[in-house]
Amino acid sequence: MMRTRPLKVALLGCGVVGSEVARIMTTHADDLTARIGAPVELAGVAVRRPDRVREGIDQALVTTDATALVKRGDIDVVVEVIGGIEPARTLITTAFEHGASVVSANKALLAQDGAALHAAAEEHDKDLYYEAAVAGAIPLIRPLRESLAGDKINRVMGIVNGTTNFILDKMDSTGAGYQEALDEATALGYAEADPTADVEGFDAAAKAAILAGIAFHTRVRLDDVYREGMTEVTAADFASAKEMGCTIKLLAICERAADGASVTARVHPAMIPLSHPLASVRGAYNAVFVESDAAGQLMFYGPGAGGSPTASAVLGDLVAVCRNRLSGATGPGESAYAALTVSPMGDVVTRYHISLDVADKPGVLAQVATVFAEHGVSIDTVRQSGKDGEASLVVVTHRASDAALTGTVEALRKLDTVRGVASIMRVEGE
Amino acid sequence: MMRTRPLKVALLGCGVVGSEVARIMTTHADDLTARIGAPVELAGVAVRRPDRVREGIDQALVTTDATALVKRGDIDVVVEVIGGIEPARTLITTAFEHGASVVSANKALLAQDGAALHAAAEEHDKDLYYEAAVAGAIPLIRPLRESLAGDKINRVMGIVNGTTNFILDKMDSTGAGYQEALDEATALGYAEADPTADVEGFDAAAKAAILAGIAFHTRVRLDDVYREGMTEVTAADFASAKEMGCTIKLLAICERAADGASVTARVHPAMIPLSHPLASVRGAYNAVFVESDAAGQLMFYGPGAGGSPTASAVLGDLVAVCRNRLSGATGPGESAYAALTVSPMGDVVTRYHISLDVADKPGVLAQVATVFAEHGVSIDTVRQSGKDGEASLVVVTHRASDAALTGTVEALRKLDTVRGVASIMRVEGE
Repeated sequence: MMRTRPLKVALLGCGVVGSEVARIMTTHADDLTARIGAPVELAGVAVRRPDRVREGIDQALVTTDATALVKRGDIDVVVEVIGGIEPARTLITTAFEHGASVVSANKALLAQDGAALHAAAEEHDKDLYYEAAVAGAIPLIRPLRESLAGDKINRVMGIVNGTTNFILDKMDSTGAGYQEALDEATALGYAEADPTADVEGFDAAAKAAILAGIAFHTRVRLDDVYREGMTEVTAADFASAKEMGCTIKLLAICERAADGASVTARVHPAMIPLSHPLASVRGAYNAVFVESDAAGQLMFYGPGAGGSPTASAVLGDLVAVCRNRLSGATGPGESAYAALTVSPMGDVVTRYHISLDVADKPGVLAQVATVFAEHGVSIDTVRQSGKDGEASLVVVTHRASDAALTGTVEALRKLDTVRGVASIMRVEGE
Repeated sequence: MMRTRPLKVALLGCGVVGSEVARIMTTHADDLTARIGAPVELAGVAVRRPDRVREGIDQALVTTDATALVKRGDIDVVVEVIGGIEPARTLITTAFEHGASVVSANKALLAQDGAALHAAAEEHDKDLYYEAAVAGAIPLIRPLRESLAGDKINRVMGIVNGTTNFILDKMDSTGAGYQEALDEATALGYAEADPTADVEGFDAAAKAAILAGIAFHTRVRLDDVYREGMTEVTAADFASAKEMGCTIKLLAICERAADGASVTARVHPAMIPLSHPLASVRGAYNAVFVESDAAGQLMFYGPGAGGSPTASAVLGDLVAVCRNRLSGATGPGESAYAALTVSPMGDVVTRYHISLDVADKPGVLAQVATVFAEHGVSIDTVRQSGKDGEASLVVVTHRASDAALTGTVEALRKLDTVRGVASIMRVEGE
């Protein structure tokens, strides 16, 4: 039975994503009506610059007063694509208070205040959906919280930032250094003028917090995520990775500890074997690898950003939220019942690839090996090379805790024969 | 607010999948309770052989009378993992009539009678979920019908049968022939004693029908799917594929025609470039590539079969259906409003790789090329090789309709200089 009164949608923000959402709502109106069971109507668009011409959007719908728009009381769904913490946070909670459900693409806000926003949604019996906040168009939030709802997820490991993957892929395929690859990414529009949020891992860390929270039914805040950017990755690191049959990716890794009682979430560059499915993710694409008890290994791959892909995810959520509204139900809310401990980085157990500049004289390897042994870090392979009194030593360890590795490196730095620690990189996906 | 009366689940079938569903329902009971908002209780298990010992299942729950079980009236959800058309079909419709929602893993039944089953579910305002029917644990049905509900899907192309992928991968990596690779698959348990359903493409065709129906909001029945098995694929075909930088996969391909008004669905072996993400899907894994207007290219990858992975998909559906039940709502039902024409194979447009055995004398290539031109099939590349009066000619075409190609091949067979058509294979994913 088709309802004729349309569902009213308020759009907050009309940039790259918002304008695409508005465009698809107009051009695909019949499809959306059929799939929802009622028409959807764009009831208002809140923007900062009202005078800018926005093709296909009725100027009468445009307002600079976002607060008044979400307070109207007749809005069914607020679509928030402004980004940032404020005013997005206040607008979303105000929307709930005034009877609307919310679809958001705001990873920073959800990573920081997801619990409070979910609580506000629940208090007012409204939906909060945010598929677009993680990995753009790739269906990931819904599969994790619905498709795998009967399974136990042990690890989520992925490439969730397209800018850094573009840069690392470029370094890998051309031998370019970081700055050169970044310049190309900027010129092609893959990197912003200020790339800090991407290259320092802040963007990926926000996504890791959201993914870990859903995967482990545990609140994980942005502050809980260990974060290391990829600005220090060098062409020499890629050369080392190649010798090991690996490449380097900036990974977001959310893991359940072996004892099951705690979890960790982290973002850092890591070597992964070329045979791993994530190694072949090229350019600005994203991919997320999920390991669970029953399903085994799953991977989700696609464009992680961009106006159209992000709009696709927003509209999928919009259809779901509208359907829920028509049936008087709400979808899954926050699930944090497991309340597992979020452990610090020191507790993470993985393998390491360490490059040392050492004096080229007898006994150095024995000294270095002793330091590893004293800290309980077992060595898998060592490669020595050198000439003219200088040498380099590449050590790959077996699995050890990050704390043990940190202690090892501190002690190595104190050795007279160690001139410097050229790089430390984690080895994942083996 | 936690409800204390448990939701009652009836399990139809307790084989590889069913026993795993029962096991997880027991071992993960607390998690399921937290995620659903109420406990779930296994209320009955219908089996054919009641005397078989089933570890962890209370013998008092076991019955041979599946009909009585689904008619009990107090069952909330029926989980059907029997497979086949009857008695599964009657049991599912009976379950709806007696107040239960249904989770099914039955691809054959859904491909044949999906519309009638959806109608029965809708008539009784109940859910029919079947994530496990396609590609095992890989979340695919839910992403297609929910995550992409605001997008326009143009193509779904995938490896949806693990047995045939195992065989083809083995042929590719070892140079083995079909029979040798099949024997190994059988010995390792990847192929059944009678492998017909897999190797002749029936299993993949059922999945293609289900996927096409969801992707295009159009009823697509098993009979609408063109089907060609992979028993004729030879080591020589793999050698030809390698020369082209390709491999061979059994693909299920559902496409919207360029004019948007019709769709096609087909299953056949095809060459795909090694650079395509589907080319690197190894062993018994499945992967499905989805192309849509806004999202672009997405891929979903994981184990396509097996007790645990399939149980993961069943349990994800079970959680969703139980949640719907608690909120008094139902999830998305059949969406066939678009009612596009399902075109026959002749209308499919793709590229072709044709190997001909020809007489090794002047003028043969000109004759062959003339036949292609007369049928409107444009040639991309030709490769000739031969000696001692015998030669082979490998033609790769530009895009042409299947009907035009069929006409071309018929005419080629009538040429005196063509001794035989050694193989015809479609080339996809370029």
